Amino acid sequence: MITIDKIYNAAQVLKDNIRTTDLIPAPNLNMNSEIYLKAENLQLTGSFKLRGAFYKISTLSKEEKERGIIACSAGNHAQGVALSAKNAGIKATIFIPSIAPISKIEATRKYGAEIKLIDGVYDDAYNAAIQYQKETNAIFIHPFDDDEIIAGQGTIGLELINQMPDLDAVIVPIGGGGLISGVAFAIKTLNPKCKVYGVQAQGAKSMINALEHNEIETLKSVQTFADGIAVKTPGETTFDICSKYVDEVVSVSDDEIATAILTLIEQQKLIAEGAGAVSVAAAMFDKVPIKGKKTACIVSGGNIDVNILSRVINRGLLTSGRLTDLTIELLDKPGQLREVSTIIADLGANVIRVSHKQGGKGTDINGCFLNISMETKNHQHLDEIKTAFKNAGYKIKENK
Amino acid sequence: MITIDKIYNAAQVLKDNIRTTDLIPAPNLNMNSEIYLKAENLQLTGSFKLRGAFYKISTLSKEEKERGIIACSAGNHAQGVALSAKNAGIKATIFIPSIAPISKIEATRKYGAEIKLIDGVYDDAYNAAIQYQKETNAIFIHPFDDDEIIAGQGTIGLELINQMPDLDAVIVPIGGGGLISGVAFAIKTLNPKCKVYGVQAQGAKSMINALEHNEIETLKSVQTFADGIAVKTPGETTFDICSKYVDEVVSVSDDEIATAILTLIEQQKLIAEGAGAVSVAAAMFDKVPIKGKKTACIVSGGNIDVNILSRVINRGLLTSGRLTDLTIELLDKPGQLREVSTIIADLGANVIRVSHKQGGKGTDINGCFLNISMETKNHQHLDEIKTAFKNAGYKIKENK
Repeated sequence: MITIDKIYNAAQVLKDNIRTTDLIPAPNLNMNSEIYLKAENLQLTGSFKLRGAFYKISTLSKEEKERGIIACSAGNHAQGVALSAKNAGIKATIFIPSIAPISKIEATRKYGAEIKLIDGVYDDAYNAAIQYQKETNAIFIHPFDDDEIIAGQGTIGLELINQMPDLDAVIVPIGGGGLISGVAFAIKTLNPKCKVYGVQAQGAKSMINALEHNEIETLKSVQTFADGIAVKTPGETTFDICSKYVDEVVSVSDDEIATAILTLIEQQKLIAEGAGAVSVAAAMFDKVPIKGKKTACIVSGGNIDVNILSRVINRGLLTSGRLTDLTIELLDKPGQLREVSTIIADLGANVIRVSHKQGGKGTDINGCFLNISMETKNHQHLDEIKTAFKNAGYKIKENK
Repeated sequence: MITIDKIYNAAQVLKDNIRTTDLIPAPNLNMNSEIYLKAENLQLTGSFKLRGAFYKISTLSKEEKERGIIACSAGNHAQGVALSAKNAGIKATIFIPSIAPISKIEATRKYGAEIKLIDGVYDDAYNAAIQYQKETNAIFIHPFDDDEIIAGQGTIGLELINQMPDLDAVIVPIGGGGLISGVAFAIKTLNPKCKVYGVQAQGAKSMINALEHNEIETLKSVQTFADGIAVKTPGETTFDICSKYVDEVVSVSDDEIATAILTLIEQQKLIAEGAGAVSVAAAMFDKVPIKGKKTACIVSGGNIDVNILSRVINRGLLTSGRLTDLTIELLDKPGQLREVSTIIADLGANVIRVSHKQGGKGTDINGCFLNISMETKNHQHLDEIKTAFKNAGYKIKENK
């Protein structure tokens, strides 16, 4: 059973082994609320998961430690367990589905864990881990449905209360529910007036469904780029704690999450992964009633694959008018490319890619298309460029 | 004259108005050294410049404040002055060259300063500011060559000594030299054994030249994407302090800076601008003798334009084998695109862009080229793909 004493005990154990992460003001995320970010993306291993894993392993008996530990994860839990096992000097075997990004696999391996790469998705890796557990009798470290794991994550609640005793609300990402269970229990025990809101991805609303129907169900599939919270089934303990202690759970779309990631980069100079940014997305897009409230968003992790980050940034640039892809129809005669280039250069846009092709069906036999990607300043600047093309007699189309 | 008392006084004034930024362990930046990051990119306004500007303005008399203040900057100093003036309730007029990124102009405007956008580069804006100063008698706030500005930046030195009393070395970016002058004076006064190293961009070595020739010169031009330290002429006071208190000044290339920015994103979840990452680049690429030393890198700011950030990330992905651009020569007959697609899909790469053109001079009359951009896992994965194409009889070329 989870108790506040267990969370205090976890804080004591973790004191010299994790970072007390900074609580950072974010004055421009939502003009109607005073927002702070609990930067667990700056935690060792890049996520809060280290807290629960470290505390759990510290509570194992000598005999249990000798049996070694097992975990199954494609991401942050794997790194948390691996580093904790390394510090405790015990053997960790981590089952990772082969679809996991290579960067996360390598990070886990670096902490000295033995990696079992299992063909398939999370469920396949999980089955292999359970099989291995039966054969070896090693200790399986659950990613969220475990009292000690929950107590470890709950230390974030204690830190928040220390860092800002008059906090009105906390917004917390939910995958399986381990983080919010610990945080909500700590906050509601010590400062019951403080609201605790949970956030899931729209494509993975397992806890939202469970709370709505008052029973745990398993989603057939999950669809979100926030892989850290793409969980099909909430935990039993975590469902129980969320039912009692969480004020409301809302969802955000992948587009809202991407906008939150880009905003954190531009305004706060912080990298969040999708799962880590849902709390910020909820605050930015007014999903929870925080008007006039002192609010902490837990940015739970920052382990985002750089390929995905690059796509998120490009999408953000496109939607904010700072990257533009135009198709211009021109007559296939000399001098047209120069004329087009002159229009763009005169207006101060920066061409980054050009391609050119002969026209197909529906165009003049002499027609051809120029596709130009360019960096623009904002929507207004882009409009000026489009107007200049139209005034010069060109047909243009913006590709989105 | 700069004194340690003045720096202590600045710390007292700044206490409730700036953030005491976190000192964050960076265990994997350089395996031979124990590295920490002083995260001034997480300072209010996104850079350390707020410290000096705020302290300077706090020392103005009532009569001076009534005259209003002027600054000239394309970046961090502008934001620092604008926010400080707003807090002091005085009028600020900021001269910004028109080439400045729109994001920085908007950020400065948001803090309530009046913006004078001057056609041209920094020198043009500076001349306009000086002209305006003569007309209005307002107070000109110099970005670095000023005792109070230097004292304000020196408070970072005090914080470092508090946060890590046994620090062996500090690595500091240098543009005009305000930051390193304050930090070096504080550190060498209170802990003379601690080394202080400066870092400039290879394309803007103004302080390095001055120290080498023992006199201040003005560079004809500067060439670096680290705009925050692209300074042609060091200050007189800062040159004098650097001569006395700085152990060594080194330079890093733009490629090294870009690698440092990408590494900070991946390993530390922090966004640094070019100027802010030179200290990290110097540590990563062994430019300074920090083997076995406890070393703090000052990450001085995070205000990087997202377009530039996007290019830095793409370049990093290309050099680490995670984004690949291949040109494949094929015979212009049906089924070839399918065959190529199959090879790529079987090996698990992810195609993000394709273009196709008829062959030109030097190719078979039936030949054509397929240009494919794809996400790959690493260099080894890319090599597997290239080998598969060669084995299937295709001629390929990697575009870098």
